[in-house]
Amino acid sequence: MKVGAEEAGEPPMDAAPKTAVNRGISRLDFIMRIVAVIGTLGSAIAMGTTNETLPFFTQFIRFRAAYSDLPTFKFFVVANAIVTAYLILSLPLSIFHIVKSGARATRTVLIILDTAMMAFLTSGASAAAAIVYLAHKGNTRANWFAICQQFNSFCERVSGSLVGSFIGILVLLLLILFSAVALSRN
Amino acid sequence: MKVGAEEAGEPPMDAAPKTAVNRGISRLDFIMRIVAVIGTLGSAIAMGTTNETLPFFTQFIRFRAAYSDLPTFKFFVVANAIVTAYLILSLPLSIFHIVKSGARATRTVLIILDTAMMAFLTSGASAAAAIVYLAHKGNTRANWFAICQQFNSFCERVSGSLVGSFIGILVLLLLILFSAVALSRN
Repeated sequence: MKVGAEEAGEPPMDAAPKTAVNRGISRLDFIMRIVAVIGTLGSAIAMGTTNETLPFFTQFIRFRAAYSDLPTFKFFVVANAIVTAYLILSLPLSIFHIVKSGARATRTVLIILDTAMMAFLTSGASAAAAIVYLAHKGNTRANWFAICQQFNSFCERVSGSLVGSFIGILVLLLLILFSAVALSRN
Repeated sequence: MKVGAEEAGEPPMDAAPKTAVNRGISRLDFIMRIVAVIGTLGSAIAMGTTNETLPFFTQFIRFRAAYSDLPTFKFFVVANAIVTAYLILSLPLSIFHIVKSGARATRTVLIILDTAMMAFLTSGASAAAAIVYLAHKGNTRANWFAICQQFNSFCERVSGSLVGSFIGILVLLLLILFSAVALSRN
């Protein structure tokens, strides 16, 4: 019976659970990429549509705040948009890994690209977080005022848009972890 | 002759160059970790010792700037110090990979820890970069003034200390790349 099973092309006993685990990892990889896309896309849209005009104005100045007033927030939107595009483009490769769970070269490529994208997204998100912190708290030593006292809803929206980006970073970190585990099990 | 060579415990012909390449990668890994340690340690020290007292003062205020005035710079120092400690602690594992180039589990662990540390270092460095940019250029819309016009040498030193950190990020990115390649060749 055992010889017959091996002749019929079934994998040996110890290889079968390995393939199953790697296929499970690949499926999780696919789902998590979609979660990350939702996070980064949401961040990009939430930040990119943020502006607030205060209901009072003087003769010379109309108090208006938009994300594009701060270059760091522009970088945040660009970083999130690029990572979203990358994650969508990486989905076919993720599907390929579900079908062919023993793939090595493509997994290596994906680890490297994921790492680069995670670094890029982290830099955008933490630079924006530093500015958001400054907007909330200000800095008395540098004489930078907390603009959130005036632009309240602007600040809330900007702070909220960071969340999706940090979810994206966490998911990318887990994706690299899973890819490394799958690669070491091959 | 060929049988004799295999009986003497030598690896088969196609495995020998693989091991040699992996050993080469492991040696490069060790050297690059030392480069990264120099970068991040230099950054932490350069930022941590930065302060400037201006040569003039009024009756009430003495103009003094230190890195600890800005919480982001404190985070930068802490992040660099932690990554330096991690890199030094990872050196024995790197030596172990030179000796035993076929190791898989430890390489996987190192990829995951390297990735986490890279994300941590990137967040510290880019948050600091965002604040340094603000200190140089200011922001007229938010009414934040460019403090670098007064604290010139403070700003130069702070900007310079970012360099080591970004070198560390690049080296960690390459370390992850090399580890992934070595893992996929095993």
